[in-house]
Amino acid sequence: MIKKGLGTLYGVSVGTGDPELITVKGQRILQETSVIAFPMGVKNKQGLAEKIIDPWITPQQKKLPLHFPYLQDEQQLKQAWKEAAETVWQSLNQGINVAFACEGDVSLYSTFSYLAQTLKEDYPQVIIQTIPGVSSPMATASVLGIPLTLGSQTLAIIPALYNIAELDQVLSWAEVIVLLKVSSVYPQVWKKLEKLNLLDHAFIVERATQPSEKIYRNLTHYPNLNLSYFSLMIIYTKTG
Amino acid sequence: MIKKGLGTLYGVSVGTGDPELITVKGQRILQETSVIAFPMGVKNKQGLAEKIIDPWITPQQKKLPLHFPYLQDEQQLKQAWKEAAETVWQSLNQGINVAFACEGDVSLYSTFSYLAQTLKEDYPQVIIQTIPGVSSPMATASVLGIPLTLGSQTLAIIPALYNIAELDQVLSWAEVIVLLKVSSVYPQVWKKLEKLNLLDHAFIVERATQPSEKIYRNLTHYPNLNLSYFSLMIIYTKTG
Repeated sequence: MIKKGLGTLYGVSVGTGDPELITVKGQRILQETSVIAFPMGVKNKQGLAEKIIDPWITPQQKKLPLHFPYLQDEQQLKQAWKEAAETVWQSLNQGINVAFACEGDVSLYSTFSYLAQTLKEDYPQVIIQTIPGVSSPMATASVLGIPLTLGSQTLAIIPALYNIAELDQVLSWAEVIVLLKVSSVYPQVWKKLEKLNLLDHAFIVERATQPSEKIYRNLTHYPNLNLSYFSLMIIYTKTG
Repeated sequence: MIKKGLGTLYGVSVGTGDPELITVKGQRILQETSVIAFPMGVKNKQGLAEKIIDPWITPQQKKLPLHFPYLQDEQQLKQAWKEAAETVWQSLNQGINVAFACEGDVSLYSTFSYLAQTLKEDYPQVIIQTIPGVSSPMATASVLGIPLTLGSQTLAIIPALYNIAELDQVLSWAEVIVLLKVSSVYPQVWKKLEKLNLLDHAFIVERATQPSEKIYRNLTHYPNLNLSYFSLMIIYTKTG
């Protein structure tokens, strides 16, 4: 049963940093929506999503920063999602549309997915629409000026390596590997790539399309790198 | 040595069908560029990329349809790429910028990559810039209204299955699998998924975000489907 006059929640993919990498549709929806939600930044600083959308919204629009803590504890995470869902629901239930600005693409490892899931559980009548966008693997390949994949190449995307042994299995199968959030395991990955003679087939981009973007095209001379959270590695496993 | 006054080739990702799914940057570059290249349609019909950009360009802009045949023969393909590169180079060499409209994202299995590669080989001084965009896996997940990946889920993207046995290896490893161009192997994939009790964990979208879009949410009752070229399957391998 859909409540008459319920607002719609839009999950708007806003891309990786350059505000122009939002889609025309995403931009339109941001500009047509009166309440703009986004993940709150850390320590009162603007978060990435908020920075990206700043040129596209006006002071007349209501900003709704939502708290998504960086935690492993599932109970605490669920509590945060529930609170965020409750905040968003207050607008939706009054018939007010809400646009949630989501870094990268809304379908790929996004915080928005947890918000949407929680809302669906608590308020099954909720109306949600997502707008796809530029994901970090695509932005990274573009910044490097090389194709991510060609022809029949298989691609593996791994969001976080908890165990370096996992990488062996993937290396045996995929022709192109993308490691998101590689910073915490970088030295181990480097050693593995050294053994396999793949260091010059691996690339890292930090903060792709952001003003502070940094590119590493050959990892041979970088056994240790102090990488930021938004670092992505691409490995081409077929040499020669 | 960069020739003074050389034009730039822009590889503009135009997304999967809905013209509004181009990025603001891609739209701006299309509108600022006097020569607009794209893959020629089949049998004098408009191709997808041309359809997508039609609302964003004007009759004053020069259209440059390029012929990329659907062939397996590498010699013939290379000849076609060489001819396309030559056509584009004629403008670039006169200092005229060219924007190539590329379906989906320019880095993911795109025809543009072959054009760019051929140009770099034949004219190393060529200046190329790519603009990332909405790729078909992201558009498909968005249309389905479900996350493609969550948390620590691993993702495998396979452009074309030539041998159904390849799927076993991936099924043992990846938590989410995307099969592009699934149409030719669909009946075999269906049988495999039936054995593994994954039919209700598999989704297909044909022509995502295009007016003729079609969605299959549970494949149990579809052992045979006459799917179009632009069909994509998503399989969630972890049940329960």
